[in-house]
Amino acid sequence: MSVVNETSTKGDATRLALLASAREIVSRTGLESLSIAQLAEAAQMSKSGVFAHFGSKEELQVAILKFTGRTYRDQVMEPAMLLPPGRQRLVRLLELWQAWTAGLSGGCPIIAGASEFDDRPGPVRDILARMQRGFRDFLIERIEEAVATGELPAESDPAQVAFEIFGAYLALHHDKRLLDDPDATRRAWRAIGTRLGVNLQEKTQ
Amino acid sequence: MSVVNETSTKGDATRLALLASAREIVSRTGLESLSIAQLAEAAQMSKSGVFAHFGSKEELQVAILKFTGRTYRDQVMEPAMLLPPGRQRLVRLLELWQAWTAGLSGGCPIIAGASEFDDRPGPVRDILARMQRGFRDFLIERIEEAVATGELPAESDPAQVAFEIFGAYLALHHDKRLLDDPDATRRAWRAIGTRLGVNLQEKTQ
Repeated sequence: MSVVNETSTKGDATRLALLASAREIVSRTGLESLSIAQLAEAAQMSKSGVFAHFGSKEELQVAILKFTGRTYRDQVMEPAMLLPPGRQRLVRLLELWQAWTAGLSGGCPIIAGASEFDDRPGPVRDILARMQRGFRDFLIERIEEAVATGELPAESDPAQVAFEIFGAYLALHHDKRLLDDPDATRRAWRAIGTRLGVNLQEKTQ
Repeated sequence: MSVVNETSTKGDATRLALLASAREIVSRTGLESLSIAQLAEAAQMSKSGVFAHFGSKEELQVAILKFTGRTYRDQVMEPAMLLPPGRQRLVRLLELWQAWTAGLSGGCPIIAGASEFDDRPGPVRDILARMQRGFRDFLIERIEEAVATGELPAESDPAQVAFEIFGAYLALHHDKRLLDDPDATRRAWRAIGTRLGVNLQEKTQ
């Protein structure tokens, strides 16, 4: 490996470690509250060291969202695609989604960012909207596949089903995290199970 | 009217005007971003003038949430109670809820606050959780009434129905505001109509 590559690999590793650290902070306090100074302290680096990787707070916010999106794709979307098209693949996607959320130290940075930035035009809102649109379209395609295999009724409206599944996910996030409701996960799976015509209760105990 | 009362009334009016102004800012940028300085500028007052009403940013955040909760009670919960118990009252509650949200200049400060503060213990999170628990219980009671009148099936689980209605509301908030989706309102009413066994589509055109 050349010196150039080694340097770049080391730089990439530092950047990834910073992003992982930043995502942890964002999970707990939201995207807007994070400062370069706070990240420098958490990562035991100088502020200028952090600035070398992210030139501004906005650039850092966009980078965190892209990083979060990549881990979502790697841990949720891609493994679900290993199953054949149909309801099983769709349910697997939802299970992986929930496992991914449960594995975060706080809330989902994308969900938190969506409500922080939905009214603030700029690159952060743009990337959030693009990511959320992409994830929703992916979910709609998996629902369409389950309609195509005949496992969901032919008259299903995949965009409507996806909207309702997403709503159950948001209500789960809210009730579990703000209301400390121990029934939230069970309620979300029950809502999703009703939409998909399967009993998902036993999966959640 | 005595001088004391006049002074107090004037102070109350200023406080209310400040809260209305603060809620507008919060609707657009969230609860955490609001500063006393920003509010002073919007209200064309000195910072010390604002401090006379709210001694800290946290006190201001709690006051905005309480103020928002009061207008929700006045404009949504109480007018719905003018109808007799049953599905009509429940649907009226949901219509007033949507009209109230549509009348805000930005997002709902309570929903935005919930995702900003769900992981930050303290008085802001406490008031948010108490308000959201109270509103949910109120919705559950209205669903129970519609079960009691026989307009919803006897085997309904009111807490589950309320969870799913709240999910549709959150998804509406997200899709309309972040994704600029013109179908979001129609989708939310369709989801709610399915839960309540009524067609609410024509109400939303």
